[in-house]
Amino acid sequence: MADTRRRGGRAARKALHAAPTPDEERAVRPGMSSGRYQPLSETDVELIHSAVLDVLEKIGLANAIPSSIELVTAAGGSYSDEGRLLFPRALVEDTIANAARNITLFGQDPKYDMLLSGTSTHFGTAGAAVHMVDCETREYRESTLSDLYDVACIVNEMDHIHFYQRSLVPRDMASSMDMDINTAYACASGTSKHIGLSFIKPENAEAGLSMLHMIAGGEDKWRERPFASLSCCFVVPPLRFAEDACHVMETCVRGGMPILLLAAGQAGATSPASLAGAVVQEVAEVLAGLVYVNLLAPKHPAIFGTWPFVSDLRTGAMSGGSGEQAVLMAACGQMGRHYDLPTGIAAGMADSKIPDAQSGYEKGYTNTLAGHCGANLVYESAGMQGSLLGTSLEGYVIDNDMLGAINRTIRGIEVNADSLSFETMREVCLEGPVHYLGHDQTLNLMKRDYVYPEVGDRLSPKDWAEQGSTDVLQRAKKKVEEILAGSRPQHISEQIDAEIRSRLSIQLPREKMR
Amino acid sequence: MADTRRRGGRAARKALHAAPTPDEERAVRPGMSSGRYQPLSETDVELIHSAVLDVLEKIGLANAIPSSIELVTAAGGSYSDEGRLLFPRALVEDTIANAARNITLFGQDPKYDMLLSGTSTHFGTAGAAVHMVDCETREYRESTLSDLYDVACIVNEMDHIHFYQRSLVPRDMASSMDMDINTAYACASGTSKHIGLSFIKPENAEAGLSMLHMIAGGEDKWRERPFASLSCCFVVPPLRFAEDACHVMETCVRGGMPILLLAAGQAGATSPASLAGAVVQEVAEVLAGLVYVNLLAPKHPAIFGTWPFVSDLRTGAMSGGSGEQAVLMAACGQMGRHYDLPTGIAAGMADSKIPDAQSGYEKGYTNTLAGHCGANLVYESAGMQGSLLGTSLEGYVIDNDMLGAINRTIRGIEVNADSLSFETMREVCLEGPVHYLGHDQTLNLMKRDYVYPEVGDRLSPKDWAEQGSTDVLQRAKKKVEEILAGSRPQHISEQIDAEIRSRLSIQLPREKMR
Repeated sequence: MADTRRRGGRAARKALHAAPTPDEERAVRPGMSSGRYQPLSETDVELIHSAVLDVLEKIGLANAIPSSIELVTAAGGSYSDEGRLLFPRALVEDTIANAARNITLFGQDPKYDMLLSGTSTHFGTAGAAVHMVDCETREYRESTLSDLYDVACIVNEMDHIHFYQRSLVPRDMASSMDMDINTAYACASGTSKHIGLSFIKPENAEAGLSMLHMIAGGEDKWRERPFASLSCCFVVPPLRFAEDACHVMETCVRGGMPILLLAAGQAGATSPASLAGAVVQEVAEVLAGLVYVNLLAPKHPAIFGTWPFVSDLRTGAMSGGSGEQAVLMAACGQMGRHYDLPTGIAAGMADSKIPDAQSGYEKGYTNTLAGHCGANLVYESAGMQGSLLGTSLEGYVIDNDMLGAINRTIRGIEVNADSLSFETMREVCLEGPVHYLGHDQTLNLMKRDYVYPEVGDRLSPKDWAEQGSTDVLQRAKKKVEEILAGSRPQHISEQIDAEIRSRLSIQLPREKMR
Repeated sequence: MADTRRRGGRAARKALHAAPTPDEERAVRPGMSSGRYQPLSETDVELIHSAVLDVLEKIGLANAIPSSIELVTAAGGSYSDEGRLLFPRALVEDTIANAARNITLFGQDPKYDMLLSGTSTHFGTAGAAVHMVDCETREYRESTLSDLYDVACIVNEMDHIHFYQRSLVPRDMASSMDMDINTAYACASGTSKHIGLSFIKPENAEAGLSMLHMIAGGEDKWRERPFASLSCCFVVPPLRFAEDACHVMETCVRGGMPILLLAAGQAGATSPASLAGAVVQEVAEVLAGLVYVNLLAPKHPAIFGTWPFVSDLRTGAMSGGSGEQAVLMAACGQMGRHYDLPTGIAAGMADSKIPDAQSGYEKGYTNTLAGHCGANLVYESAGMQGSLLGTSLEGYVIDNDMLGAINRTIRGIEVNADSLSFETMREVCLEGPVHYLGHDQTLNLMKRDYVYPEVGDRLSPKDWAEQGSTDVLQRAKKKVEEILAGSRPQHISEQIDAEIRSRLSIQLPREKMR
């Protein structure tokens, strides 16, 4: 007994490298249950909900397209003299009660399926960065299709990034059709995790769906397990529908694609500077979208996508890394959970232009509060810089370690007779060796309870200096190079790939994908 | 009306630079009420408390000094055959019920007084770093008295660092007396915020107290407003008293100095690898100290200082920046608040050796969860690197911005008829201009509701490039240079300073202090 307890570092290393830990025993997994941080009181939540119903009933939304006016007025809504679509309280409440919940976002590989149920929490990407950040030269250059594919391939290798919504815009595409189709192609071929896409026009969505059908092995197979969702900015805040996006949404609802109902007002610019008011407007806009989707197709899978942004009020520019941003987003996550709707919010939108200490803490506190509030999906959580204007390859690798640690905090602390450890303490203190290194409990828990970073450094200062005094960016760069030099994901067969390329204008060179 | 609502960026800048905002209207203040993150369920808390009482009653603590054995056995405790001091449940429960609460930690300047009441939360420093990190050369060099004084002066200028417990050890001192006395001197002369000190021997504490009396203007004035607390590692985990530290503690209790009862076990090494077990051991150790202090002097101001550290179980080395660390510390903060005791925990103990992105996220998530759990004091929250082995001047400036933002999240979101903003939304949407820039509400809230960073960057990529593509470290370095080139704090009169120097061996050159 004493023998096993006195095993030291060598035994620990041996235990670590022994048989791989089964997935269900790993220290953190996708979809851990969160919710231990609640920024709003119950009264706050009720007051916000009541104000939301007022806004939808009395202010409503402008710029509704004819089909949505028809649907909403037929369901009891009205169209005002000022040209605004008004949503009666009962319609909104009924929609919330009857909307789809406990939905699954599928991966091409079923091991990446995400069940959005209760407070299960998943971290992933998103964004429409127009720049790649070269972290060495500190230059912002135009982002390309090749970059987008590289990012997808990197995300595919990152344990703690659970889905890949496209995070950048390929600016080397000649038309919106080329952009949308090639974005979908690069995402779907770069990772077998769930992907999120956008389409600028309905015809692009139709073309995109045809590709998704081919990848799935037919439309029926696609509809069984739609592995891509539509990220849809269906509103132009404050409280106006975005006409093109509404048409795209209708197309994708018909096409069986889950919809992320995205409202992204910016407090102090396109939504109230008052944080409570910003929550009200976001929630009102998203619930208007939820009514719309459910009138198009009852119980269609839709995600409550309140993404309130924040302005630096000195300049009016977005500040995605502020404390105001962090608490505002978490409050919206709490509202979504209050409705028990599949809820997706955003965090990690650092203002810093490069992955420096500022970037780290901005991503740290925004992702922590978003991750703990109970939302099912945290978008933008990795890779973004410059208030979403830029993204870097290294960022995904750095942020993956951060998300693993945050996920560990979400897992929390299991308290039971064993874990309370009275007997372990008694043994160690009374029978020796008066420390826990090498104790059976320690060795048993080292893989099951503890998460280890991939590029995060925990060396002693001496060892760190001997290994070159690197910063995390340098270590991430090395990891990026390894991933991109390795073989690329091959989950789409050559035959299907050839079929896609024969029907659509795919511009990602085949030789990049080996 | 429309006129005021349409004012743009220029009006916003004018509003920002108008009359300074009164302290009580600032967006964040020291001592904001936290507690919206609770890692443990109520049942968990009760189970932990019950296990703690078991540990104190049945395992107890070794290495008690005679005076403490006498006090505890006279109060109903016992001394076991194995040489362990055992604490009966009733004694522990009575101590918790009767201990000092709602205590104030005073500053030399009363504007820095901190009331530790309810879930009021303050961020400050601590540590015993033995290295200064040169962030440019990435070298760890031995820390000196001059460094310690520089750090105190920097902290004095940082809005969001509310107290200064010494964060490094001056290694250029010849004796432990020189070290303790000069540390106290450098802290007290560098900042008029509350300071935290340590003493290695009782005679050092006596000498230190004599200096504190001089600074306060006499022992009676010191006892009215003790502006320094004793950070006391009175245990050597697991469950052993530290004899010298106990003697120092007795001296400081008699001297009227508030005591931070510090237990710093390291999960997997000196406390159980099971996080629940680590909480149990920490709480048991600190409560043993609380009993001890209250038997020495009933209701003596004492801080529940559970500082569980975490091991990287691959090496046994401390990992202060891990997710396990973040959740473990917050759970201990919750336990302290459960007892309604003045509670101080630690966060920000980055493993990264330098202020890079890893350092940023490690500090971000640990400080966020510590800050939200309800603890009254968050120590180590700024400046630390290398799992507490190093500290850098720039770190305090960088982390100050982070703490301001985290404090903003702690403030949360006020929900009331005004802040819900129905009328503002109605006006903006129906009467124009369909945006909130320059709206009265926006201008009114820009200083009261929003926090702005000092060295954190929110420029556009273009402006950032034009201003030199700096990282936050470069900007912090500039700020450090400005502070250190400016005049140093002069709150201790020349006369008192001369008196101190005539009686004690002060080694900080007077000319450094102009």
